[in-house]
Amino acid sequence: MTNLKELKDLLMEYAKAQSVSAIVQWDQETYMPDGAGEFRSEQLAWLSALAHEIHTGSRFQHALAKLVDLESGNIIDDKTDPDTKRFLALVWKDYHYASVLPAAFVEEFSRLTSQSQQVWAKARMKNDFNAFRPYLEKIVDLCKKQADYYGWTLTPYDALMGQYEPGMTAETVGNLFSELKDGLIELIEAVRKSPNKPDDRLLKESFDTEKQWMFGLEVVEKMGYNLNFGRQDRSAHPFTTGFHPTDVRITTRVFENDMKSAFFSTVHEAGHALYEQGLPAEFFSTPFGEAASYGIHESQSRMWENMIGRSLPFWQYFYPRLKELFPILKETDVINFYRMINVVEPSLIRVEADEVTYSLHIMLRFEIEKMLINDGLNVSELPDLWNEKMKEYLGVVPEDYKMGVMQDVHWSMGAIGYFPSYALGNLYAAQFLNKTVKDHPGFWDTIRAGEFSVLLNWLRNHIHSRGRQLDPLDLVKDVSGEMLSPKPFLHYLKNKYKDIYEL
Amino acid sequence: MTNLKELKDLLMEYAKAQSVSAIVQWDQETYMPDGAGEFRSEQLAWLSALAHEIHTGSRFQHALAKLVDLESGNIIDDKTDPDTKRFLALVWKDYHYASVLPAAFVEEFSRLTSQSQQVWAKARMKNDFNAFRPYLEKIVDLCKKQADYYGWTLTPYDALMGQYEPGMTAETVGNLFSELKDGLIELIEAVRKSPNKPDDRLLKESFDTEKQWMFGLEVVEKMGYNLNFGRQDRSAHPFTTGFHPTDVRITTRVFENDMKSAFFSTVHEAGHALYEQGLPAEFFSTPFGEAASYGIHESQSRMWENMIGRSLPFWQYFYPRLKELFPILKETDVINFYRMINVVEPSLIRVEADEVTYSLHIMLRFEIEKMLINDGLNVSELPDLWNEKMKEYLGVVPEDYKMGVMQDVHWSMGAIGYFPSYALGNLYAAQFLNKTVKDHPGFWDTIRAGEFSVLLNWLRNHIHSRGRQLDPLDLVKDVSGEMLSPKPFLHYLKNKYKDIYEL
Repeated sequence: MTNLKELKDLLMEYAKAQSVSAIVQWDQETYMPDGAGEFRSEQLAWLSALAHEIHTGSRFQHALAKLVDLESGNIIDDKTDPDTKRFLALVWKDYHYASVLPAAFVEEFSRLTSQSQQVWAKARMKNDFNAFRPYLEKIVDLCKKQADYYGWTLTPYDALMGQYEPGMTAETVGNLFSELKDGLIELIEAVRKSPNKPDDRLLKESFDTEKQWMFGLEVVEKMGYNLNFGRQDRSAHPFTTGFHPTDVRITTRVFENDMKSAFFSTVHEAGHALYEQGLPAEFFSTPFGEAASYGIHESQSRMWENMIGRSLPFWQYFYPRLKELFPILKETDVINFYRMINVVEPSLIRVEADEVTYSLHIMLRFEIEKMLINDGLNVSELPDLWNEKMKEYLGVVPEDYKMGVMQDVHWSMGAIGYFPSYALGNLYAAQFLNKTVKDHPGFWDTIRAGEFSVLLNWLRNHIHSRGRQLDPLDLVKDVSGEMLSPKPFLHYLKNKYKDIYEL
Repeated sequence: MTNLKELKDLLMEYAKAQSVSAIVQWDQETYMPDGAGEFRSEQLAWLSALAHEIHTGSRFQHALAKLVDLESGNIIDDKTDPDTKRFLALVWKDYHYASVLPAAFVEEFSRLTSQSQQVWAKARMKNDFNAFRPYLEKIVDLCKKQADYYGWTLTPYDALMGQYEPGMTAETVGNLFSELKDGLIELIEAVRKSPNKPDDRLLKESFDTEKQWMFGLEVVEKMGYNLNFGRQDRSAHPFTTGFHPTDVRITTRVFENDMKSAFFSTVHEAGHALYEQGLPAEFFSTPFGEAASYGIHESQSRMWENMIGRSLPFWQYFYPRLKELFPILKETDVINFYRMINVVEPSLIRVEADEVTYSLHIMLRFEIEKMLINDGLNVSELPDLWNEKMKEYLGVVPEDYKMGVMQDVHWSMGAIGYFPSYALGNLYAAQFLNKTVKDHPGFWDTIRAGEFSVLLNWLRNHIHSRGRQLDPLDLVKDVSGEMLSPKPFLHYLKNKYKDIYEL
């Protein structure tokens, strides 16, 4: 057996452990009986320890050490071909991230974040920031330590962000966000002043939940989500999970009086699922069979949800079918419906934000996280800072912690550095879609004809099939021929909302 | 850490691997997308190799060897208390059964049975015994070898049966079945001659499948199946699976024109599930937390399905509700309905047989298996022998292999020795229920009142909570005060069918 084969066998074993764990987690979120939670945690803890052992234990170390210097990450054989070099660099990096944290630290972090998620959930309901504060303080401390373990060049926050968005620095993101912020605030101001606001009360009428479910599935199948290799189930919070490119599942929840909610969550998750179904199965278990980054993943979901799913051509195709299912919609026309699903309104809650204001919610969190990790901001100062920045960025201020600084689960999970990926997803998506349209001048006609294969094939060829071969910034450059910039996204938004709000 | 603690930790690890595998298998049978089967097999093969390694690898060997002589199974410390002795004896036995087969043999057996199941399924559809024959010949050969590896005293068939029904020999079963057979044939003959046969055509009318589903769940909840620790889903073949006493799931399928099918399968599986939910959670992962045998398991499902679920008092309670759901049943009364669900009719297919003829199907298989394993019967002689015995036992002869010798999946899976457990379940059940009624003279009034806790508590105390502390024959003796005998079952049947067929 060659050294590479030995390493790949271990990666496959690790992938199997992880995919089995993902099945068990999917079951927990969808069908597990209420009373089964306690033993389920033990099954998952066992699987996670097992996967960690496969990925960082002595067998893996020995196999990897034949090809890469474990300390420095340098490839041992200089004559290794570039593809294999990239492959080994990624394998080493994942190994390094997984093994560089001392066992005692991992255990402390895991225990703390498990507790603090529960504390956060209760404290949030009671609107009690002080109950959560000591936990968040410890989490910030541990995240700083984590950054030091990982190692960093410019600022420790870079190391945290690097877990989710490889190659991205706080400086790069800061520059992108700064330009984006000015453009967004200007657009929001124009929208605010517009006398021609859509009235979307019709969408809060009663919509049969079974029909909503069916319509969502019809649409995502049409988009290309293959139900021979996937399915949709109900869960408290929508998510996508992939066990292998042949088994990629989405979930959602349906509200009778909010037809937008389930539908756009289904399209969003299907965007993620199309990516996972499109990853090259022949590279499954290796970095080349994985998504490029969390932000690139988000680019897929947000492109399908917002740029396609909330476009006029999309509804010119689907609106007749929607009216057939929900005759109440005959009260209005497709142009008006298009305006209703694109209402822009600065609001307090990130996950309910429209595509114009959404990125501002992210920027605020990015600013605060940087200050916590790099600049010694005290957790006790968070609530005031949050409100200040909400006023500055969005012009609205929460009346309590629940609707403000305590709204997101991420910090209680120890996932500091994750938020930027959401907004970067918007920027990536705009740049990718620009290029698709450039490559296919009749692009929007295909959408108007309910023909999604032009887009899906483009994404398969340029994004999905390439796995993690390139880091996100390189992928954008390679695919679009341009550096990542907020301009395409801002241009897209201005163009779209100029029509909707008659600016 | 004490030696016992070390061993128990390894048993817990093994139990986690097995329970995770059971979740993944449940998913495969219920919700897995069609296209995901290939990778799923690999995940399951990995889990099964992993579980085997935990159960028989060097860590387990070292831990067990401190307490038990690995070769002989003798407990090392004479002063060990009786409970621990029994515990260690069972742990050693399981280890011995798992480790005594050479790896090459296990691999050959596994590959062969995996192939032969597929060959069987196709050959059965084409009614082609000869296509299946060479596979079955190899399976019989390997099963003989397997018996030799396990070791046996009287006949090799005992070793195979011992996997499912510990302590049972072909001689014991042969004696029980011989007496049972005479009684059954006599009863069937009386039924055949009866001029007062029930007419059950009404039950083949259209019954809404959603209502069937709901009613089945209502009934099994009432029986005591706790949906906080369980659930029911759809699958091609009904089954029960338990991941832990807090997560025990059942499945079924529903036919619009056969309301008996889904209902009695639900009650049957709930009987299994009540057992699994009643196993002592504090002993989970150890033999004392496991079912006593396959036959004892079957005693629970068959008691609930037939002796309770097809009894008159049961329907005196549930029939009003059933009529409410299905007004078509108002055409008849509960006595007549009771007769309809208890039609006795010798038939070709085991899984569709009524409770009177069922055991004869098993005896025929038992006879044939014994001849194959102990007496050198040639597989090519099977089809003729099958038909001969069908004629002798049931008076009906199949016109093809599909409805005859090729109907069951068991042999293609290599599960020779399993069938007797089904019929033994009937005998155990009758003896257990007799004792329950003796302990609670007003027993049938509780059933008539829809009150199942008297029965369930009795089963919990005398059967469920005791796990594998006793082998089945000892359990029957201990619980009922009498040796296992076919008399109580025959007595139960004669009494019941005397009324139904006015014998």
